[in-house]
Amino acid sequence: MEALGRHVLLELRSCNPASLDDLPLLEGMMLRAAEETGATVIGKIFHQFSPQGVTGVVAIAESHLCIHTWPEFSYAAVDIFTCGENFDPTEAAKLIIADLESADPEITEVPRGIDILSVATPA
Amino acid sequence: MEALGRHVLLELRSCNPASLDDLPLLEGMMLRAAEETGATVIGKIFHQFSPQGVTGVVAIAESHLCIHTWPEFSYAAVDIFTCGENFDPTEAAKLIIADLESADPEITEVPRGIDILSVATPA
Repeated sequence: MEALGRHVLLELRSCNPASLDDLPLLEGMMLRAAEETGATVIGKIFHQFSPQGVTGVVAIAESHLCIHTWPEFSYAAVDIFTCGENFDPTEAAKLIIADLESADPEITEVPRGIDILSVATPA
Repeated sequence: MEALGRHVLLELRSCNPASLDDLPLLEGMMLRAAEETGATVIGKIFHQFSPQGVTGVVAIAESHLCIHTWPEFSYAAVDIFTCGENFDPTEAAKLIIADLESADPEITEVPRGIDILSVATPA
């Protein structure tokens, strides 16, 4: 099976709730996750909600990383979409899980653009 | 089953390849998909790749919409993450499928933050 991209969905339960409401911490974490694992950041948007919660999206040359947090439930939803050989989404996932101290993380990887290459390439 | 969010993944095959390389068209489409279905846009990043392809992320108060296109394969990967009652991701999905003229779209919905509410809420 060939795929154009890898899309990793993280269900991060039982996180440190203070971290989930700390925009500078989350922004630094997401940028570090992107950069330390080889991605090139092309833009970012982070937003603090009232009374709590943060949304952050990071566009990378290899696709994107997004986070949405619910501090009141100690929960964060993260997704990391990558294409290309230079970037390993599972490394970024590990860094995020460790930083948020998630005691009950769940990682699901969804291949994207399956067999598009073989369909599109002439025999 | 209760969920905090709905995450819709779109595999859009057999699209109009010219549309997939048209950044202004894609940006307008994604913003319209967000706004016409009730979401509040808080930021956006769109990037044209060379020789072809576009990445776009739209942060909304209800989470995000992202698109990554491969015009050379007539393929786009889209994901729409929403929380709250005001926004229906399937309406946004239909608009995007129609605009890109995808002849072979696949929609997968992944509930996010399942049963977090019932776990977190005291009995």
